Amino acid sequence: MTDLTIIGTGNMARGLAARAVAAGRSVQLLAHEDRAKAEALATELGGTITPGVLGDQLTGAMVIPAVYFDASRAIAEQYGDALNGKVYVDITNPVDFATFDSLSVPADSSAAEELQKVTGAKVVKAFNTTFAATLTDGTVAGHPLDVLIAGDDADAIQAVAGFASAAGLNPVVVGPQRRARQLEHMGFLHILLSASDELPAYQWNSALKVIPAA
Amino acid sequence: MTDLTIIGTGNMARGLAARAVAAGRSVQLLAHEDRAKAEALATELGGTITPGVLGDQLTGAMVIPAVYFDASRAIAEQYGDALNGKVYVDITNPVDFATFDSLSVPADSSAAEELQKVTGAKVVKAFNTTFAATLTDGTVAGHPLDVLIAGDDADAIQAVAGFASAAGLNPVVVGPQRRARQLEHMGFLHILLSASDELPAYQWNSALKVIPAA
Repeated sequence: MTDLTIIGTGNMARGLAARAVAAGRSVQLLAHEDRAKAEALATELGGTITPGVLGDQLTGAMVIPAVYFDASRAIAEQYGDALNGKVYVDITNPVDFATFDSLSVPADSSAAEELQKVTGAKVVKAFNTTFAATLTDGTVAGHPLDVLIAGDDADAIQAVAGFASAAGLNPVVVGPQRRARQLEHMGFLHILLSASDELPAYQWNSALKVIPAA
Repeated sequence: MTDLTIIGTGNMARGLAARAVAAGRSVQLLAHEDRAKAEALATELGGTITPGVLGDQLTGAMVIPAVYFDASRAIAEQYGDALNGKVYVDITNPVDFATFDSLSVPADSSAAEELQKVTGAKVVKAFNTTFAATLTDGTVAGHPLDVLIAGDDADAIQAVAGFASAAGLNPVVVGPQRRARQLEHMGFLHILLSASDELPAYQWNSALKVIPAA
């Protein structure tokens, strides 16, 4: 067993795995197709990372697919009952990339809720408002990243918050799973700002944060 | 003529009028029913504020109803053609206060878009993610407030951005009017955090902000 299973070897997988190493958590890291990519990232990041490939038996009590929404849903369906009871962290922003103008999930739903329809895992929304590049360090301009968390299962929420906290981040439990609707609109807006040539101050290394009064 | 017309004498009207005074802008301040409330607030804030009451002829090229969504729509309908060509700033968060669980506008629309349906003014979304108490100073923990702005008319957007900038705030033009959908979900989430007894760090004096890399 490992603490976490992270699926993917892209930038978000790298950032999340880096935070896991910082938190002292053991990780199963599954490449989508090419085991060598997981092996290379495990070697690069150090810590306790066991590389593998999608389809391997899941060893993490918490599974974080660091992939796009459609791929995450396919993974949930692929593993089926093997996910029952696990924590399934939905980090996705289901942007309609054809138009870059809206979300691809129904307006009265969210990626997290759509994932919950196809899995017996406890789906928790988190890390969809933190960019990959910022997870590597965990801070932006000296501010720990806010990790906004929405879920319906108290233990699952606490598991995700505990991971964020151990990783040096600032977990903020915002409410039930359907609050993912708000979080996905926030993530989408943050993406739009970062993608805009007219807003050079906001790039993929910026952080969306709630600043408390001093 | 005045630079702005602010409608309302509540906390948001107070905050916005304080920023207008700081920016050196002249203000027509219309109380909803009680002219004396506008007179008292004008005296308190100083600057160039002309008090009045709802129904007075609008003297501001930019009209900012600092009221709830339903009241703002009623104001737009009341003034009718007198608003044509003016900038109408929608600061509202159309929260369903019966459930405190969703927005009251259709899921594929926004308060700004709903207002645009009933007015010939140029509706610009802005100031819905800045709390009243923070507008009084314009900063939170040393950070100038982000004013996220969405609209379809370039001149109207620039007018709102220019006001925010002159008031010492940080205007961020996020895109067309329909981006108000994202801004309203963000404002709603910020309200939920501030209203939560479990999150003492986030109160009505916090700021939602995009932090650029240092």
